[in-house]
Amino acid sequence: MRALFLLPATIALAGAAPAQKPVTPNDIVSAAPASAWRTISPDDLLVIDLQNGGRAVLQLAPTFSPVHVANIQALARSDYWAGSTIYRVQDNYVTQWGQNETEKPLPQGVVAQPPAEYTRPLKGLSIKPLGYADPYAPAAGFVDGWPVAYSPKAGWANLAHCYGSVGVGRGLSPDTGMGGELYTVIGHSPRHLDRNIAVVGRVIDGMDKLSALPRGTEALGFYKDKAQYVPIAGIRLASQLPAGERPAFEYLDTGSASFTQYLRVRANRKDDFYIRPAGGVDLCNVNVPVRRKTGGERG
Amino acid sequence: MRALFLLPATIALAGAAPAQKPVTPNDIVSAAPASAWRTISPDDLLVIDLQNGGRAVLQLAPTFSPVHVANIQALARSDYWAGSTIYRVQDNYVTQWGQNETEKPLPQGVVAQPPAEYTRPLKGLSIKPLGYADPYAPAAGFVDGWPVAYSPKAGWANLAHCYGSVGVGRGLSPDTGMGGELYTVIGHSPRHLDRNIAVVGRVIDGMDKLSALPRGTEALGFYKDKAQYVPIAGIRLASQLPAGERPAFEYLDTGSASFTQYLRVRANRKDDFYIRPAGGVDLCNVNVPVRRKTGGERG
Repeated sequence: MRALFLLPATIALAGAAPAQKPVTPNDIVSAAPASAWRTISPDDLLVIDLQNGGRAVLQLAPTFSPVHVANIQALARSDYWAGSTIYRVQDNYVTQWGQNETEKPLPQGVVAQPPAEYTRPLKGLSIKPLGYADPYAPAAGFVDGWPVAYSPKAGWANLAHCYGSVGVGRGLSPDTGMGGELYTVIGHSPRHLDRNIAVVGRVIDGMDKLSALPRGTEALGFYKDKAQYVPIAGIRLASQLPAGERPAFEYLDTGSASFTQYLRVRANRKDDFYIRPAGGVDLCNVNVPVRRKTGGERG
Repeated sequence: MRALFLLPATIALAGAAPAQKPVTPNDIVSAAPASAWRTISPDDLLVIDLQNGGRAVLQLAPTFSPVHVANIQALARSDYWAGSTIYRVQDNYVTQWGQNETEKPLPQGVVAQPPAEYTRPLKGLSIKPLGYADPYAPAAGFVDGWPVAYSPKAGWANLAHCYGSVGVGRGLSPDTGMGGELYTVIGHSPRHLDRNIAVVGRVIDGMDKLSALPRGTEALGFYKDKAQYVPIAGIRLASQLPAGERPAFEYLDTGSASFTQYLRVRANRKDDFYIRPAGGVDLCNVNVPVRRKTGGERG
């Protein structure tokens, strides 16, 4: 007996009158006009190619951690990560990768000790408020497609640690990490890391290539044997790839009317399946829509 | 260069004077007296044995969904899940298993259409309040080791959908599912499912056997080919196993002084690594401590 849960309304109600069909988040995304979508710059797309053929694509966030992101872009352009590996996978926490085994010289232009870009000034950001309580900050909302926590009073804002968020591994303070070792969140959003680590972006495609890996059995999820390391063929910016091979993505403008509607429905699911709409949603459960752009990558 | 993030204070400060060492959540768990721990009944431990040798252990929650839990116990005792499989793994959502392919007759005592145990009366529950805002309910806290959302005014309480929570797959309402198909959360806690599905427990051991599986490529994460199904050897209660082979677990009493201290530190991490304590924590990020009980399973 196949008990689907979260049977999509489109399947459940095939044949029902459209007027009776409750609006789903997907309906809103599908109906959003072209003007509500923002193309991601190919300089802000970091493409991770695994030796096993798997690919994950990250979107970088220069608005929030410009020095770390510039480092990552310089590292990608110099092929710093050739021969690097995924060496840590901790359940309900993070997958981490980089040059774990070697002290590689830093390419020109890489800042060895970046400033602590854990927050940035609120000033200059245009915020779409979440509208619901956030246990980790005075307020929460969205800026240019990113989930953000902030303090209107103290004037800071930070990128939130959500599922798929990418942060910079570091040692103890004042070390902030230079960007060569990165991790992504593969469990419940560890928001207690907010304002303690530089968040530099998020995984927008191929997340399963990072989240479905065997968990490491050493403390903190490090792999015990090097044989378990997942080899990385290379990490490059989309802008380094030949034009015809570039992945291209766009995100739903969080300042758009479509996003406002999407947010409202995410907080009040009324599809067939739902009996009691929550009347609220947490910052990391909103999931700003990101999609592959038509006319991008071919073949 | 190995940039550990979240380097445990115990490693980082080896040799430092104990007085200077900030207290970590783990310190509190280690120091909790035996009286702060509660043994889980072997009738409430559901042991999933995969054909590949992997094992996951679930704790059932009869306080919150007694009819569904009684069904699951009856199904286990009749070996209902022999020959069942894991057939759905959706990234950042759920892993689901059961008798997907066959209409198996229900064993005696199983209620085919249980009531909608999506909430229960608040009355009779002793709650340790979380103390921070919850976007999904008027209040949140802990009952007998479980994360719970509740309404003091309306008088209901529900088990929260957190990472590792186990719920009952169902079709469209009024179907509530009879308990034969179960799922566990493998991503950011989907709290919008709260009060819409019967939550019957949580995974307390071997979570990686369910979370690190390849994601399904069909809609909703169903596996496309049956060859991808993960075969289940059997699902039994710990109480069905020979005494010497029973896994045994205990959880930290959420009414204990140790848990109060643990909760405070989880919301205000000050270990070396942390620069800015959050001053808050969300319900699903508290992670009630559960551990293998000494003197339990041998060999």
